[in-house]
Amino acid sequence: MKIYQTHMAPNPRRVRMFLAEKNIEMDYQEVDIAAGDNLTPEMRAKNPTTKVPFLELDDGTCIGETVAICRYFEEIKSENPLMGRTALEKAQVEMWQRRIEFHLLLPVSMCFVHTTGYFKDRMKPVVEWGDISGQNAVTYFEELNEHFSQSSYLVDDYFSIADITLLCSIDFARVVKIRINEEYTHLLDWYARVSSRSSASA
Amino acid sequence: MKIYQTHMAPNPRRVRMFLAEKNIEMDYQEVDIAAGDNLTPEMRAKNPTTKVPFLELDDGTCIGETVAICRYFEEIKSENPLMGRTALEKAQVEMWQRRIEFHLLLPVSMCFVHTTGYFKDRMKPVVEWGDISGQNAVTYFEELNEHFSQSSYLVDDYFSIADITLLCSIDFARVVKIRINEEYTHLLDWYARVSSRSSASA
Repeated sequence: MKIYQTHMAPNPRRVRMFLAEKNIEMDYQEVDIAAGDNLTPEMRAKNPTTKVPFLELDDGTCIGETVAICRYFEEIKSENPLMGRTALEKAQVEMWQRRIEFHLLLPVSMCFVHTTGYFKDRMKPVVEWGDISGQNAVTYFEELNEHFSQSSYLVDDYFSIADITLLCSIDFARVVKIRINEEYTHLLDWYARVSSRSSASA
Repeated sequence: MKIYQTHMAPNPRRVRMFLAEKNIEMDYQEVDIAAGDNLTPEMRAKNPTTKVPFLELDDGTCIGETVAICRYFEEIKSENPLMGRTALEKAQVEMWQRRIEFHLLLPVSMCFVHTTGYFKDRMKPVVEWGDISGQNAVTYFEELNEHFSQSSYLVDDYFSIADITLLCSIDFARVVKIRINEEYTHLLDWYARVSSRSSASA
């Protein structure tokens, strides 16, 4: 099996970090999305959404969407679970995963594609929406800082896929010059703790 | 336990339909989001994102995010699984769930909030972005029609939570006058099949 990915993009990093935490070795094939390598008929046949990353199994079955790929590996390798250990914890991981996606990763992505024009050959940027999205992402840091004043990780003291999503979102936000305000010391402490995991450089 | 919800909104319907498919009885408490009942200090303490639905367990623990609530019940009541039965199927359900969310439910929601001004007291609508989002949702119907020319449900012949999300997204799209073009017969066949399930009226 192998994963098609673009090394610099945030979603492939989420998968690489997830697999590193679970000690799963993987072959990666680089896809140059800026050059449109993901848009060829051969690639669309494997992955109709054209998004990276996607997983190709040995029988040719392809699985797209970051969290779907992670779920596959969570299911086939149960050691070191990152998506929860009990019913309640699985629900809490799902809740935080989605909060981080909707309140941070998606707004940062909107800010990126609508204000930089990076994909202007394949979509129409709306700069006002990009600017608002960036402001929404910044606002969310305050809530996260408050959360980490009470909790080591997003779900209590349990490191999960939601923390991986948060780290990758924060680092991705640098491309649109969004950084954590230095007064958010609890969030910065969490950031230092998670950034220092060996999986963070996967 | 009980679920706080707004009956007319699409995400609470996803949860009601999920629970109906699993034969789980539930108490629901109606929240008038248009009147801002979700924005009170008491409600924010339970549910900081202010979104509906959210689940309150008997010990006071609250779980927000539609899919997190569904995952909790999938875990505590394994009969009639709606989130996949094997590792591969769980990944495929997750993939389709997210495709429907990102390519249909989210664009329809963007079209709704940015073109109708429904929440203009609490966000700044960007009409151009709302219009583009609506067009993107319409475009996705073509891909879905093609998919259902080969498959009874989103994941082969297995009815899943992803089909629930799709039905609720299509019905929600009516509020912004987006309907399935009559030439998309495969998608319309799927729609008729899923709409006729008793859970669809939950």
